[in-house]
Amino acid sequence: MGEPCVRDLGEQGVLQLLFPFCPPGMVGDDAAVLSALGSQSLVVTTDVLVEGVHFSDRTTPPDAVGWRAVAANLSDLAAMGATPLGITIALAMPGEVPIAWIEGLYGGMTACLQAFGGAILGGDLSQSPVRSITITALGQVDPARVLRRSAAQPGDAIVVTGLHGASRLGLAILQEPGLGASVSGAERDRWLRAHQYPVPRLDVIEPLWQAIAQTQGRPDIAVMDSSDGLADAIVQIGRASGVGARVQRERLPIPPGAMAIVSPDQAIQWVLYGGEDFELVLCLPLATAEGLVQRLGGEAAIVGEVTADPGVFLIDGQESIPLSLAHGFQHF
Amino acid sequence: MGEPCVRDLGEQGVLQLLFPFCPPGMVGDDAAVLSALGSQSLVVTTDVLVEGVHFSDRTTPPDAVGWRAVAANLSDLAAMGATPLGITIALAMPGEVPIAWIEGLYGGMTACLQAFGGAILGGDLSQSPVRSITITALGQVDPARVLRRSAAQPGDAIVVTGLHGASRLGLAILQEPGLGASVSGAERDRWLRAHQYPVPRLDVIEPLWQAIAQTQGRPDIAVMDSSDGLADAIVQIGRASGVGARVQRERLPIPPGAMAIVSPDQAIQWVLYGGEDFELVLCLPLATAEGLVQRLGGEAAIVGEVTADPGVFLIDGQESIPLSLAHGFQHF
Repeated sequence: MGEPCVRDLGEQGVLQLLFPFCPPGMVGDDAAVLSALGSQSLVVTTDVLVEGVHFSDRTTPPDAVGWRAVAANLSDLAAMGATPLGITIALAMPGEVPIAWIEGLYGGMTACLQAFGGAILGGDLSQSPVRSITITALGQVDPARVLRRSAAQPGDAIVVTGLHGASRLGLAILQEPGLGASVSGAERDRWLRAHQYPVPRLDVIEPLWQAIAQTQGRPDIAVMDSSDGLADAIVQIGRASGVGARVQRERLPIPPGAMAIVSPDQAIQWVLYGGEDFELVLCLPLATAEGLVQRLGGEAAIVGEVTADPGVFLIDGQESIPLSLAHGFQHF
Repeated sequence: MGEPCVRDLGEQGVLQLLFPFCPPGMVGDDAAVLSALGSQSLVVTTDVLVEGVHFSDRTTPPDAVGWRAVAANLSDLAAMGATPLGITIALAMPGEVPIAWIEGLYGGMTACLQAFGGAILGGDLSQSPVRSITITALGQVDPARVLRRSAAQPGDAIVVTGLHGASRLGLAILQEPGLGASVSGAERDRWLRAHQYPVPRLDVIEPLWQAIAQTQGRPDIAVMDSSDGLADAIVQIGRASGVGARVQRERLPIPPGAMAIVSPDQAIQWVLYGGEDFELVLCLPLATAEGLVQRLGGEAAIVGEVTADPGVFLIDGQESIPLSLAHGFQHF
């Protein structure tokens, strides 16, 4: 007997279950139709999450799988300066998946959309030996306000929002709960939330344009999200812009309490390479950078500067350590 | 040693390989940006294909997997009356997948886009124990020319384009090559192509609007593609429109030569339930239907009529056989 699973309901039964998560009139045709966007540009991004690679039942309840899948895509929209319109969801899974897992998944996705904008525009279901979730997110942006990786210029300040390494700390505690014993409950909860319910930084876009206007700064600044790690984002911006960077180790925000559970070296590795914090990394003129950090109320920091020389280095006292693409998140 | 595989190149290596398939400037950011669509509505659809469920190396070379994946999505756009803008591709696969397979896959996808319109707008790669391909297609349509399933009215004629059952015949020959011995080479090739390289019927939309204009027919007609089978499409249109249908067996086009390799009953089952022919099923006033069939040069047929009574039946002489949702294509 056991709890009801996908095979018990069948494809039509699961579809009936999922329709209420979608806006009325949006699903039920071969494709979804969205109103005209007028002069706005359309922005599109896709992410695939695979069971055992991106999530596991051990560390991620179904609503967190759904939340993170949506948040990762909305974070890509934020990095382009766009606001969300909606998502499509392709869900592949074995017939043994419990119905409760699917309801949790869609609950988490819907909660994230309600918090940050966008609706479920449609999707597809398939049988598969392994669970996977592919989300495509659509957004819109004023064509004059598109943010790209390739716009960094030598002399720009490098701004990072929020805390890096927090998601990796949360994962470590989920994998080895004893680790959480030496930090406060508030810190532990913050890291768990950072891992399971990350926040896409769509809230940064409006203060950014305010800071640009206030400082009469140039509008083409470089932005990327830090889904694959802080170091990865800086290296990718450098490559796309044909520039390098110097990041000051002492300026990097470290999650408070991190040193209580891992060594200082490990903590800094997780800040640089932990990944999945879904914060933004921006390269922009110093005055605009300072204006942005002020508007974000200290929830951001200037951590270094863009250089004409193409190398990307972490400056630690007398040491100069080259940064590289996310070694933790390369597939294959 | 053997041929090079995904693991040999790594994620960055595979990405470098795939960039040339995308238009210059489109990929390399967190998301792709498309020009403003003005007054056109945006149309979006998603399909996931899983190895062993939707394709296998035995019956489908990689370029055919790519072609079919794109064609299935473009067919959904055609069913909405839309023209293609482009697609995103999420590819999940084991590290052992040969590089040649990926190049074949992208070659097939590109060939289908070049034939029918649209560009590769971006994507995602992931490790996975099983190959899967999720495509999201974007299209545009004049808001006054959106075609929906729910617009069928009692008395409408039911038009089907092309041949149904041809894809299923092609699959049968691929699975059991001896079956192809009793038909002509031309017929065999046609069925194999129908299965491996199906044609999304985007070409039907313009003649449809010409026929509507010429006959001063109503603009809200019902359309669905027959990806899950001809019977499924008629049943789905009936459900969405709150109507039924009577389909005349003697009017259903049967692929020429089909009876030489399977029984008449099996042939009609494959016409009704074979699926994956990616033709269009339309419900519209008789005069407009006749105008459309004429404009399509006989590559379409009126096969029945819409009824106020909600049942959907195949009329075969004195017999009246209820039609049902695709029994062959229900997952789980």
